[in-house]
Amino acid sequence: MSDPLAELPVWRYRQGRVQEAPDQVVMEEPLEIRLAGEPFQMLMRLPGLEKELALGFLHTEGIVRDLAEVITIHFCGTATDPLLPPNVVDVMLTAEALERRGRRHLEVAYSSCGLCAKEAVDEICRKVPPVASTLTIEPDQLLALMARLPEAQPVFKATGGTHAVALASLDGRVFLSAEDVGRHNAMDKVIGRALLEKRHFGELVALLSGRISFEMALKAARAGLPVLAAVSAPTTMAIELARELNLTLAGFVRGKSLNIYTHPQRLGEG
Amino acid sequence: MSDPLAELPVWRYRQGRVQEAPDQVVMEEPLEIRLAGEPFQMLMRLPGLEKELALGFLHTEGIVRDLAEVITIHFCGTATDPLLPPNVVDVMLTAEALERRGRRHLEVAYSSCGLCAKEAVDEICRKVPPVASTLTIEPDQLLALMARLPEAQPVFKATGGTHAVALASLDGRVFLSAEDVGRHNAMDKVIGRALLEKRHFGELVALLSGRISFEMALKAARAGLPVLAAVSAPTTMAIELARELNLTLAGFVRGKSLNIYTHPQRLGEG
Repeated sequence: MSDPLAELPVWRYRQGRVQEAPDQVVMEEPLEIRLAGEPFQMLMRLPGLEKELALGFLHTEGIVRDLAEVITIHFCGTATDPLLPPNVVDVMLTAEALERRGRRHLEVAYSSCGLCAKEAVDEICRKVPPVASTLTIEPDQLLALMARLPEAQPVFKATGGTHAVALASLDGRVFLSAEDVGRHNAMDKVIGRALLEKRHFGELVALLSGRISFEMALKAARAGLPVLAAVSAPTTMAIELARELNLTLAGFVRGKSLNIYTHPQRLGEG
Repeated sequence: MSDPLAELPVWRYRQGRVQEAPDQVVMEEPLEIRLAGEPFQMLMRLPGLEKELALGFLHTEGIVRDLAEVITIHFCGTATDPLLPPNVVDVMLTAEALERRGRRHLEVAYSSCGLCAKEAVDEICRKVPPVASTLTIEPDQLLALMARLPEAQPVFKATGGTHAVALASLDGRVFLSAEDVGRHNAMDKVIGRALLEKRHFGELVALLSGRISFEMALKAARAGLPVLAAVSAPTTMAIELARELNLTLAGFVRGKSLNIYTHPQRLGEG
């Protein structure tokens, strides 16, 4: 199994001071599932149990009903180069199971067997311009905005079943928020609202109740948001993308402390 | 805005006793986004801010770059029948933006404008057989198994960035677990592992570190798991699906208490 942890430099803000120190970050890598050599599904996942993930996904999507329908599951390319990450799993199914795959279409399909997070990030960065905003914000200002997020979570208070995202201006006068059963939806809802209200994304910071995955960082960058701050942890791929796209990521933004993962100049550092 | 909460009957297990009482559950409903009348994307979401969600999704997916590319956004059908849920949003884009939509394919496309959670659940239930297992488990047994989940979360302990799912037998001798940056992946990983090990799903309970959405309930039911227990809350659609597919849902399984949402007979009730 690949290492599920990466050690990365982090700027820690504690008791009014910033200190640079290494921190452990959860790995996120793309996994491409192929059926008989044809790209079928791309998943962002924690390294480990890749063949199990491919099989379980095909089972819970209703394509593989029984293990007897699986002829082989193997990593593409690793036989010839053991240094390639196990990011492509090729599954051979019986004709009957293969029939159930439907008509999917992968936006991005890689011909190589060595697809890694770096390449996937590079691919995105060819299409998405870096965030242009030069906004800066004090760590305490960001903490004060985050402290308002619970007010925007009435459904969570009643049910415990939602995530929330808010877009706020530095002075807190603009504070657009949305809750949803999915983090991605909550993000899309506030971004849609800000678009309709013709807000300037370069002057807003995004506040998340949950974690920062690659996809959440991509949504923020595509909208042109300069700062993405979350109550929880970011993944390695979110950090790589944010680094390339000039997006400031802050995690564990709670109480009086936070960690900065990329572009700390917007929080007055580096 | 539709009501984001539903009041449903719940069996509460507290201090060794079960009591039936109503509880507030977060609503989950399908939203179909159409482009010029053509089905484009289905999202499961909390009701509210539907047009914003459609617009934000199209923006963060890189299809709509600017509000000027949006000609109209309207709810399908609500002009003729205000009682239909606002579950279909139709977006008219400029030809240039429409070009960027790529070639997607929706597995399930509805011709009607009144798609609701009930219909989406019915559609699934025509394809997925109900869980056959007659397994029963004491609430305290389930709590004891859940208490072991943190042992299966070393990456979470180090990074705060993962979810975990375990499949356990009643005596705890089988305890297959997986962590991932995504809940769906963690579920698929353990299901794939159990398939490879030729485990009998009807004799296992699923333990989740997070929340139970429609998709998580569907994965459990498709695998034939009789009990899905989570540390956090279920959604209304997960409950509806579980009710139809003979799946026992338990939420807020923490410490010495839990809530049962469907088929309580497997936990010795009803």
